[in-house]
Amino acid sequence: MITSTTNPQPADFADVRATNLAVVLRFVREHAPCSRADIAASTGLNKATVSSLVADLIDRRLVRETGLTENRVGRPATMLVLDGSPYAAIGVEVNVDYVTAVAVDLSGERLLSWRRSFSGATSTVNQAVATVAALVRRVTGRMAKEERQVLGLTVGVPGLVGTDGTVLIAPNLGWRDVDLSGDLAKALRDPGFPVQIDNDANLAALAEHRFGAQAGTANLVYLTGEIGVGAGVILDGRLRRGAGGYSGEIGHIQLDPLGAECRCGRLGCLEAVAGIGAVLQHSALSPAEVEIELEEVVRLARSGDGRTLDLLAGVGRYLGKGVSVIANLLNPEVVILGGYYVPLAPWLLPAVAGEMQGRTIAPDSGGCHVVASGLGYDAAALGGAARVLDSVDSGRLPRVS
Amino acid sequence: MITSTTNPQPADFADVRATNLAVVLRFVREHAPCSRADIAASTGLNKATVSSLVADLIDRRLVRETGLTENRVGRPATMLVLDGSPYAAIGVEVNVDYVTAVAVDLSGERLLSWRRSFSGATSTVNQAVATVAALVRRVTGRMAKEERQVLGLTVGVPGLVGTDGTVLIAPNLGWRDVDLSGDLAKALRDPGFPVQIDNDANLAALAEHRFGAQAGTANLVYLTGEIGVGAGVILDGRLRRGAGGYSGEIGHIQLDPLGAECRCGRLGCLEAVAGIGAVLQHSALSPAEVEIELEEVVRLARSGDGRTLDLLAGVGRYLGKGVSVIANLLNPEVVILGGYYVPLAPWLLPAVAGEMQGRTIAPDSGGCHVVASGLGYDAAALGGAARVLDSVDSGRLPRVS
Repeated sequence: MITSTTNPQPADFADVRATNLAVVLRFVREHAPCSRADIAASTGLNKATVSSLVADLIDRRLVRETGLTENRVGRPATMLVLDGSPYAAIGVEVNVDYVTAVAVDLSGERLLSWRRSFSGATSTVNQAVATVAALVRRVTGRMAKEERQVLGLTVGVPGLVGTDGTVLIAPNLGWRDVDLSGDLAKALRDPGFPVQIDNDANLAALAEHRFGAQAGTANLVYLTGEIGVGAGVILDGRLRRGAGGYSGEIGHIQLDPLGAECRCGRLGCLEAVAGIGAVLQHSALSPAEVEIELEEVVRLARSGDGRTLDLLAGVGRYLGKGVSVIANLLNPEVVILGGYYVPLAPWLLPAVAGEMQGRTIAPDSGGCHVVASGLGYDAAALGGAARVLDSVDSGRLPRVS
Repeated sequence: MITSTTNPQPADFADVRATNLAVVLRFVREHAPCSRADIAASTGLNKATVSSLVADLIDRRLVRETGLTENRVGRPATMLVLDGSPYAAIGVEVNVDYVTAVAVDLSGERLLSWRRSFSGATSTVNQAVATVAALVRRVTGRMAKEERQVLGLTVGVPGLVGTDGTVLIAPNLGWRDVDLSGDLAKALRDPGFPVQIDNDANLAALAEHRFGAQAGTANLVYLTGEIGVGAGVILDGRLRRGAGGYSGEIGHIQLDPLGAECRCGRLGCLEAVAGIGAVLQHSALSPAEVEIELEEVVRLARSGDGRTLDLLAGVGRYLGKGVSVIANLLNPEVVILGGYYVPLAPWLLPAVAGEMQGRTIAPDSGGCHVVASGLGYDAAALGGAARVLDSVDSGRLPRVS
């Protein structure tokens, strides 16, 4: 396939077929049902090549034929759709107060979604690894029953993850320099599929970009609203990780030099004045307590309690100040609030929008909309599965089983 | 050429030859002197195609042959180098207190560099257009004498430039909704080359990425230190403009709610507490005054004047707070300080580095270095020329003259 690029290094030609297989697979994903002629016409690959590539994809059970279609000019064509039913991509999120696992098939259909409470702050790394491994074993067991081949696993954590997958620091989990992929692979006894680690906000952004209400938006920023606050930055259609993989660390930018003290020791960090801790006015709650107190805040807000409404408006203004930094610096089409922000969005969003009007230089906030995530608590785990699908889409196809 | 990409839309096949011509041109730019065989080996294009593409590039006088080389295995090969001597790319910067013009040849060799004082704040749009047009006519006249074909002109302005090239707002020039490319094309009486408009910080970032000491750095942010402060954001090797083209507007993010009043009316904007106005403690100086007072500040700092050193350390700490936001959110390898920051860098950089250590979450500031630009006052204009070369490199080749 021909693309115009400023990077003059073409891929190794050994990759040509894999790349073209991926091109055809992505075309079917986005245009199914479509015919071999459609693929040839839009990819510029000649028909003989397309037929051979499609045959290969059918062998791999990534694509299947449907009946003929008549409603087109010329002789009826056999239409192709995504198959992928024999495959599964797994995503897991480890956070301060829960662990989530999801599995999707190649077309992104949700196969399962499990969430359980987990005391991240008080667990050791080994306990966390054991918990995740146990959960993953249950998921792979289920997939085996369904005769699905697991294409890969990505685990999201709330912290700095190097490009090599090492968890450099996860402050709210108390982790430092953890080789999570290595430890997990050991605990899973070499599962036979790749195990990747990523930052939770990065994965949530990937999930929104592939599965969310804003899917396909070129410039999208996701803000986690967990015990910590992080950002996943998608610009020009790709996740931007920065030099070392540490982009999106917005939680500790200082919004108010006189603001509340943050668990990091600094004053007025976004996490401290606009995180869930500021809403619950307590940053060291047990997981169970967070959910209960959050429900209570929502109940009071619904009932019109003045103190609660003032509190949420104040947190919303700080959050708006933080989102304005993103809007001014990156000018995304949308900033998506996730996690605990979702149930609070009806009261946070008006204050956020108000601050943005006053703080963004471009008229109308540069066209930046702020919305609540529709993916809820599954976002990061779903993004883990999305990252596995991304690697298939970019050429790492499953072997013929 | 084959590239792995998540964008499944291949380019129109009418572009194939132009694209491959550009691939070969870029290869010669980066690997000259090189042989046709070298090109075939690294691009995967077959030798017959490469020979035909090279012949075309030689016809266009973009590439030329040098003598044979012996020091390689097998029979000597004719080596190719970039020619481009009959071409010129022009860049212009309009700023609050000066207008700069540069011209470079296809290989980036500087052909001329002119700078003149200009009262942007007190000039009308028409006066600015007339000034730029007069300067450009002198440049094109010089290029005509040298029998060079002008490939294009890009004009940088300190303001919001929409993706269509309209100047939405240039606060420090007092411009709103100015169709600068249209007005300039008229003033130049349809010059016969494309006229593009861009944000000055975006262009300076392009210049650093192509010509600067940090050339080729994948993640690079340039901070203008003019009367206003803006950022040009390069991530994963490409300028990231955002949804509407308004990225990099860091000048009015609030660093101190109790800080000095900004010309925008807000308190403690980066521009107000860490811009040149804060250094000169006066934001409404005439262009001539800025340069004179700046020299005086440098003289006092050199002489060890305590008050001046304290002032620069204070401005440096605010600047460091702003740079920390960039480092946390984008994790670039380098942040480059340009414009008036360059002569002040010896006193600003230590304070900037100190703040970053305390404010960035990733260890060692995520590997982010802060340096002074080596391109000086020409950066934005050079970037204008770089943008013209970029469009050649991505396939918009000059017609055979």
